[in-house]
Amino acid sequence: MTIKYNNVYIQDASTVTGPYEAKGPLSKHFDKSYDDLYMGSDTWEQAEIKMLVDSVDLLLNKTKLLKTDIDLFISGDLLNQLVASNYASATLKIPYLGIYSACASSAEGILIGASLLSNNQISRCICSVSSHNTGAEKQFRNPTEYGTPKPKYTTFTSTGAASILLSNNKSDIKVESATIGITCDAGIKDAFNMGAVMAPAAAETIFKHLNDLKREPGYYDLILTGDLGLYGKNILIDYMKTQYGIDIEKNYNDCGVMLYDIKNQPVMAGASGPCSSALVTYSYILNKMKKGELSRVLLVATGALMSQTSVNQKLSIPSIAHAVSLEVIE
Amino acid sequence: MTIKYNNVYIQDASTVTGPYEAKGPLSKHFDKSYDDLYMGSDTWEQAEIKMLVDSVDLLLNKTKLLKTDIDLFISGDLLNQLVASNYASATLKIPYLGIYSACASSAEGILIGASLLSNNQISRCICSVSSHNTGAEKQFRNPTEYGTPKPKYTTFTSTGAASILLSNNKSDIKVESATIGITCDAGIKDAFNMGAVMAPAAAETIFKHLNDLKREPGYYDLILTGDLGLYGKNILIDYMKTQYGIDIEKNYNDCGVMLYDIKNQPVMAGASGPCSSALVTYSYILNKMKKGELSRVLLVATGALMSQTSVNQKLSIPSIAHAVSLEVIE
Repeated sequence: MTIKYNNVYIQDASTVTGPYEAKGPLSKHFDKSYDDLYMGSDTWEQAEIKMLVDSVDLLLNKTKLLKTDIDLFISGDLLNQLVASNYASATLKIPYLGIYSACASSAEGILIGASLLSNNQISRCICSVSSHNTGAEKQFRNPTEYGTPKPKYTTFTSTGAASILLSNNKSDIKVESATIGITCDAGIKDAFNMGAVMAPAAAETIFKHLNDLKREPGYYDLILTGDLGLYGKNILIDYMKTQYGIDIEKNYNDCGVMLYDIKNQPVMAGASGPCSSALVTYSYILNKMKKGELSRVLLVATGALMSQTSVNQKLSIPSIAHAVSLEVIE
Repeated sequence: MTIKYNNVYIQDASTVTGPYEAKGPLSKHFDKSYDDLYMGSDTWEQAEIKMLVDSVDLLLNKTKLLKTDIDLFISGDLLNQLVASNYASATLKIPYLGIYSACASSAEGILIGASLLSNNQISRCICSVSSHNTGAEKQFRNPTEYGTPKPKYTTFTSTGAASILLSNNKSDIKVESATIGITCDAGIKDAFNMGAVMAPAAAETIFKHLNDLKREPGYYDLILTGDLGLYGKNILIDYMKTQYGIDIEKNYNDCGVMLYDIKNQPVMAGASGPCSSALVTYSYILNKMKKGELSRVLLVATGALMSQTSVNQKLSIPSIAHAVSLEVIE
């Protein structure tokens, strides 16, 4: 399901991270980083809420807007019942829609916001996502302190929050179109192997997007998945070739691979978490677009739709990917 | 934030319930009911997924449509990481957006779907919600088998799934407008007292809706909250009077009170859960609208945005309410 927009623009974005992200290769592009995972809070959940509120406040400061200037706040995270988004929204007092597509939530937020904006139903919308490494580990697996061994293809939940402001006011970059994904299930039951779980969903959505708009992969300067990690990235390249006969290798990268220095940081196969794709795209990629180094970027955010309950019940893990096409205005 | 629509119509709806709902006063209005909470499945989660898929299949049968005729499936539930919606979507293969506003998810789904439809970005959309009593008890509180005592104002999570088909094709009933709520926090920490937690959010959204559209409560034949229950319903009536000077008593009811025979069924203060407002509205209320007994209905779905983690951390519980105005075409 691909939707085209002709009046939706990115006004600005903001990124807040934890210590691991601040030590990665994209460090200088982030607006704010904490050097401690608690961030002055009592719990991991409170730390995540703090980052999320920070990211919205930073974005409002950058754009010289007040909370009352914003019509809609759309947010999603990984915590049970969206605790980070819900509690952040309670402090923001902006009309709020909670969404969930796991790590694909960044694109889901943008496409819902863009759809309301394109019909002039709202004027300004902030779309946010967040995740917290130790909060996610405790909830989905075991507390980090247990020191549970993990296979090398495990992804590392990123710590951060990112927000983007969309409006109808013309700017340098527009949200050109979006593809809503379908839920895939490749039958994989290994909750560590997120890259393999999500690659088929990414492939399905990239294929649908290109097919719906009759585009070749080369239409984009960059196709950017988030967050398959090192192993998932290679699975996607192979899968696109064998299943759809499409070669994306030339202009493709994955946010889960870009966020960290995988060789030198203790992050296994790279980043996951809703904020991974947003941290990379809303800082480094948007900066490259503003500088004219990239004109057309397809952000394909990928999400593994599992819970601890479904994993314990030995179910295979469904996944989804939503895509948004970002273009520099000529 | 109130949005008006002029080309969004309800084509049909479907309702599937568990045994308690089937013994309630609205029993004859439901499409399908199971007399056992397992519903032939191995787990409560699987039972909820089954009801959700059933409700979509029933709706497609009623409307003589195929899955491929549907552009978008929007769904939300109470399970961690939306397990019911996610696994149902994996079997449906319809482009899918996961949403979360707790028990306010029914209205959130309708307003997102209506916004996409009103811009002709999609042609047909199914919005669904589900919940399962024993699945929710196990996840949020304790397994029912523990027999934990509860205060009398506790609400009873309803078991069921409900789906509604929206499109641009003119029908008897239109989605006239919607109000996106802000998150409220009244400072209440009692996870049993859902009615008190959610009443301020319902009041805020009803006030905003009436104020934005310059309407009196009497504009509506019925203002319908879901799901405050017996105590929350009375709190809302008082709160609307004292905080906003608005009297809604004449044309107001709550889906949590209507779904069960509260005096004679073991349901404490009445129904809660995302499907409560949908089960009542998509069956009994739509039937009354089709018969001409009601012309204008404001559905105000209410949600308590807690998780077990936030309750254990002694946080107060935020809440939200979204409203959709349904009108019979003259």
